Order: sequence, then structure tokens, then C-alpha cells
Amino acid sequence: MSNPSLLILPGDGIGPEVMAEVRRVIDWFGEKRGLHFDVSEDLVGGAAYDAHGKPLSDETMAKAQEVDAVLLGAVGGPKYDDLDFSLKPERGLLRLRKEMDLYSNLRPAQCFDALADFSSLKKDIVAGLDIMIVRELTSGVYFGEPRGIFEEGNERVGINTQRYTESEIERAARSAFELAMRRNKKVCSMEKANVMESGILWREVVDRVAKEYPEVELSHMYADNGAMQLVRAPKQFDVILTDNLFGDILSDCAAMLTGSLGMLPSASLGAPMANGRPKAMYEPVHGSAPDITGQGKANPIACILSFAMALRYSFDQLEEADRLEAAIEKVLADGVRTGDLLADEGVQPVSTTEMGDAILAAL
Amino acid sequence: MSNPSLLILPGDGIGPEVMAEVRRVIDWFGEKRGLHFDVSEDLVGGAAYDAHGKPLSDETMAKAQEVDAVLLGAVGGPKYDDLDFSLKPERGLLRLRKEMDLYSNLRPAQCFDALADFSSLKKDIVAGLDIMIVRELTSGVYFGEPRGIFEEGNERVGINTQRYTESEIERAARSAFELAMRRNKKVCSMEKANVMESGILWREVVDRVAKEYPEVELSHMYADNGAMQLVRAPKQFDVILTDNLFGDILSDCAAMLTGSLGMLPSASLGAPMANGRPKAMYEPVHGSAPDITGQGKANPIACILSFAMALRYSFDQLEEADRLEAAIEKVLADGVRTGDLLADEGVQPVSTTEMGDAILAAL
Ligand SMILES: CC(C)[C@H](C(=O)O)[C@@H](O)C(=O)O
Ligand SMILES: CC(C)[C@H](C(=O)O)[C@@H](O)C(=O)O
Repeated sequence: MSNPSLLILPGDGIGPEVMAEVRRVIDWFGEKRGLHFDVSEDLVGGAAYDAHGKPLSDETMAKAQEVDAVLLGAVGGPKYDDLDFSLKPERGLLRLRKEMDLYSNLRPAQCFDALADFSSLKKDIVAGLDIMIVRELTSGVYFGEPRGIFEEGNERVGINTQRYTESEIERAARSAFELAMRRNKKVCSMEKANVMESGILWREVVDRVAKEYPEVELSHMYADNGAMQLVRAPKQFDVILTDNLFGDILSDCAAMLTGSLGMLPSASLGAPMANGRPKAMYEPVHGSAPDITGQGKANPIACILSFAMALRYSFDQLEEADRLEAAIEKVLADGVRTGDLLADEGVQPVSTTEMGDAILAAL
Repeated sequence: MSNPSLLILPGDGIGPEVMAEVRRVIDWFGEKRGLHFDVSEDLVGGAAYDAHGKPLSDETMAKAQEVDAVLLGAVGGPKYDDLDFSLKPERGLLRLRKEMDLYSNLRPAQCFDALADFSSLKKDIVAGLDIMIVRELTSGVYFGEPRGIFEEGNERVGINTQRYTESEIERAARSAFELAMRRNKKVCSMEKANVMESGILWREVVDRVAKEYPEVELSHMYADNGAMQLVRAPKQFDVILTDNLFGDILSDCAAMLTGSLGMLPSASLGAPMANGRPKAMYEPVHGSAPDITGQGKANPIACILSFAMALRYSFDQLEEADRLEAAIEKVLADGVRTGDLLADEGVQPVSTTEMGDAILAAL
């Protein structure tokens, strides 16, 4: 049997820097654990635009469809701010999500013990926090038509369409309930059913799917209240299920609760391929961080934890995923910190590569 | 000259309880400060549905159009959960906003010194916080057409439309810049221009309006990053300008930072009427709180501060507004607390009426 295949798309900004550390981790699993991957690398975002004039070439898109998993770094940067909408770095990322049909975006918001002090929230509110946000990723206002800027009378109007079919809601909901079954068996679904008909349909379909999971406790919350509750008492949640746009905002809010955005991975999963593995892309939640690009300051942990999610969700290597996560916890417990994790002035930050060294040593 | 007119719509849940305290405050201003109002009272939300079979009667709507300002308590409650969308309590509120054309929703997120400990955020992150969120309130996905649940093939699809014209964006932006001129001269505009064309138009129009206010420093932020930054370092903001849906979520997030939702008022302003006053409705940010309804536990401060905003924005009584706000700060500094403001067990909470008494005494 051939090795599983990985397509690495480092992207822009700190993407290539953090991805270099992931490659070292991948190599370690090959050498020490006999877990070999066929790794190829390609361009996405601004880097792809610079090379090909678009943020994702058709060739790269085709490769992404063929591999067992894609690892993506980050896209975007001020250099590309004035590009036409259709050429912006983000369009490359959105094309991957849409064409690979990665409908279920898993965003854990976890507070690492060693870092609980680092949150802007009080320690007792966030210590031990472990939420999983399931964000629908291929539909809603991100992709709905009609969309655009149109003339109307003597002015222009900007239009986007929020749009969800029952089957789109259903498959996202099912993935949230499946996850909840392996966790604390609680799902909280968030929408604005008091204002939006798409939210009414959302709630109805989620209620229907819930019947298949009688062990899971389901609740519904308006998304505005959801944002409040995340800030007030985030530990009340286990799995949060929400749509593409609410998920974008609520997951960033949840991520920031942990105080360590440079720590948070994500998985975007689609339907099973012929080999049984889901279509999958893994990426850190943080962005391309143009302000620190090229300075060796970036925290590679979110990207390395994204690879741990790949081990777990694409390759069924649960023990190896645990091993990698444990190594990272150890390094943090030992006090190794990149600049983003430094609360007090006294401690000396390590570089991106030094953090990689420490993680390899802990492995 | 006749007295200015106020229409009071207590609504549902704790609405009537907190509004009773506002009426006492209004009476005080009449007796002691010679500020007389012609006050009438009517129904909205579930209360209106119970009486007339709809959440706002045409007669009440007509009255709201005629008065100088509307004061609203809160709408909604579990009793009305199964009503048809068009009959839900929220529709009464949304009809008022839309037909009065209240396009500029001002939501201050202020942390009261006496309550800084009460936030789930660390004290130094929120102490002294003073943000003003300007939320566009009459357009966007709340009102855009087409909307509804439609058959499509053999399933249903839920559709809502995000829609902004240049003039809608312009007037909301102008109101944010005007406010910023009277504050710290900073506006941060939030949208998802990286994903939504309506956000691109939003950004463009805001940039254009900004040219009329060269003294104001304008920045743009994606709404997901906005949610993060609110949690990470809220004091970086002065005025935040955003659309109806993002404003709903971001303002609730900001409100919760202060830890005292029962403290936060809002003003919804429209175009000037013949007498020069803007169309206006004032309401607390909190909801109808069915869990504590009828128990005399509700905090009336948000609703009383909404009346203070009315004094300021509708009646140009800046000194009287300051007087009322100072009385509330004094009461808080004296340690008077309703149940929602109690961090530690030792202190005895006061009732809604007792809080009203304390505020009248401080006046
Ligand atoms: C970069 C951007 C298009 C993207 C999104 O809006 O989905 C990002 O914010 C995210 O959450 O992954
Ligand atoms: C009650 C509801 C319709 C309303 C809204 O969504 O605008 C509320 O959440 C608010 O923010 O005033």
C-alpha cells in the first residue's frame, strides 16, 4: 500500500515559517514512528497570485482533490489589499473549501493549563475550557447567489444571499452530533431564528437530526446571546453548531477567550473519499500575521496541532495524535514560549524554530 | 408650548417592572426640575399579541410615529415560542424600528467603576471601558428581500438577503462620525469585505464619508477580528460602526465585557422630525428575562439609563442627563446592588423598587 498523501500549502505571511516546523514534525513521525507520508507542496493565496495571477491555480485545485489531506498555512496580506475581489488571497482558500465540499469546520477552543493566565478573561472562567465549534463551511452568505454590487436608481446596492438547504444543514448537524457523542454529549445550536427564516429552517432541521441522537442534549441559542454566553461563561458549552458566517465570528470570539490564538488548530472535513478517508483540509485559526512575518517570531503550535488533527481525523492515528499533543503540553508546561505567549516581561521568547526544536525534543 | 410627548411600551417579562421605576424617575424630573412630559402607555410584543392578536397594533404604530420619543422595555418570552414568525413579539419591535426608520442604533458599552470586578474579564482589561457601538438598524439581512422558506427540488431552502444601498450606509456612517467628533475622534468600521460584496460597498462608502471628518481617525476591521479584539483589548476602541447583523452580535459581545448587562441602555435614532428632534426609541440592551419575571428582582438601571439617553439625544437636556447618570453612579458606589450585580454571597440584593428608591434618593 502506498503512503498517505499530504499537500502542503504554506500560503502567505507567517504561513511558510510555521509550516517549516510542521514539516520537521512530519519527518519525525516518518523516521521514529514509521508513519510515512508522500508530501508535496504548492502555492495558495497571495503567493499563488504572484506566481500565476490567481489565488489558486486549477492544477493546485486538482491536486488538492486527489490527496488524502491538505495542510494550509495562512493567506492574505496588505500587499494584496487593492486586488479585485475575485483575485484576493482569500478566494483561493474559499475555492478549496467549496470545491472540496468541506462542509464541517471543526474549531476547538481549548485553554491550555500552562496558559490559563494569559487570557484576558479571569482564570477561573477559562481554565480547563474545552469547546468544539462546528461551523458549516460551504454554504450560507459566503457562497449564496445573487451577490455583487449593482446599480439601482441613481445609487449602488451591495447584495449577498444567506441560503441554506435542508440537506446542507443536516450534514453539518450530523457531524456536530457525531462529535458530541465522543465528547460530553451536548450540542448548542446557534442562529437568529427570531429574525431570519434561514435560522428557522436551521433550527427545525437540527431538531430533526437530534432525534437520531437521543443521548445528546440539544439546546438552541440566538447567536447574539451565544456571543454573550461565550464571554460570560464559556464552560457551559461542549459542542457549538452554527452556520458559516456566525461560525466565523463566534469561533474567533471563542478562540480569543483562550488568550492564545497562536495555539488553535482547525479541521475542515467533507464526505468520505473512495478510500474511506474524508476529504480534509487542516489549518491554524490564526491569520498570516504580516506584522511579524519573516522575523522568526511566529508560534508554530497552531499549525502543528492542525497536523495532529490530521493524524486524528484523516489517518485514524489517535495515539500518535495524543503523543504530539502531549509533547506540546509538556513544552508549554516547561515554560517555553514564543513572543505571542508572553504575559510578563521577564521571560525570554523563543523563535519559531526553537519552539519546533523543543517540540521535537519532547517527542 | 406643549410638553414633549413620550410613549411608553413596557412590553413583556421584566419590561413592565423596570418601566415602573422609569416612570417614577420621569415624575421626579417633572416635580423637581420642571421637566414635564406628556406620557402615554401602550402595548408591544407578546402583551400586544395577547390583547390584539398581533405584536404591534396599527394604532400603537401610529402613536409611535407622532410622539417625541418612545421608551420600550423588552419583548418576548417562552409563551410565544410557537407563534408563527410574523406574529412573534420581536416583529413588533422590528416594525417600530423599520417604520420609524430608526437607522442609527447607539449602544454604549461602558464599564462602571464600581462594577469593574464583576466582569468575566480581568479588571485592567475593562476598567474605564467606554465604547460606543453604532449599529445600522433598518436594513441588511433583517429586512432584505427575498426572504423565506421555499421548496426547491425535493427539499426546502431558507433564504435571507443582506442588502445595503449607498445612502443607507452613508447615513449610518455619518451618525458614527458625528458621535466620534464629540468623543475621542476614532471610528472603527467592521464588515466582512474579504467575503461579502455588501461589505466592500460598506467600506467604500465609509471611506467617502470619512473625508468629511478629517479630524476623525478611521480604521477598518473584519467583523471576526472585531469580535476577537473586543475580547482581547476592548479599550482600543472609541466608536465602532457596523451593520445590523454584525452589530447585533458585536454589541452583545461588547455588552457582556462590562459584566453588567442590566446596566446598558440604547438609543435608536432616525431623521429629524418637523420640530427638529430625531425620531427616537430608547430601550435597555437586556431582554425580557422570563426566568426572573414578576419576582421584583430585575435591575431597572438599563431602562433608567435609556431615559437618560432620551434626555440627551431627544430633549437636549444634557445637564439633566448627567444628573441622572451621576445619581446612578453614586448608588452603585454606595454598594446598592440588584441580584444580577452580585459577585459575592455576603451582600444582600435590593429589589427593583428599592433600586428605584435609591436612585430617587440620590437625585
Ligand atoms: C480568511 C477568511 C476568508 C476566513 C473566513 O472568513 O472564513 C477566515 O476568517 C476564517 O475564519 O477562516
Ligand atoms: C429581539 C431581537 C429581534 C433584537 C435584534 O436581533 O435586533 C435584539 O437581539 C436586539 O439586539 O435588539
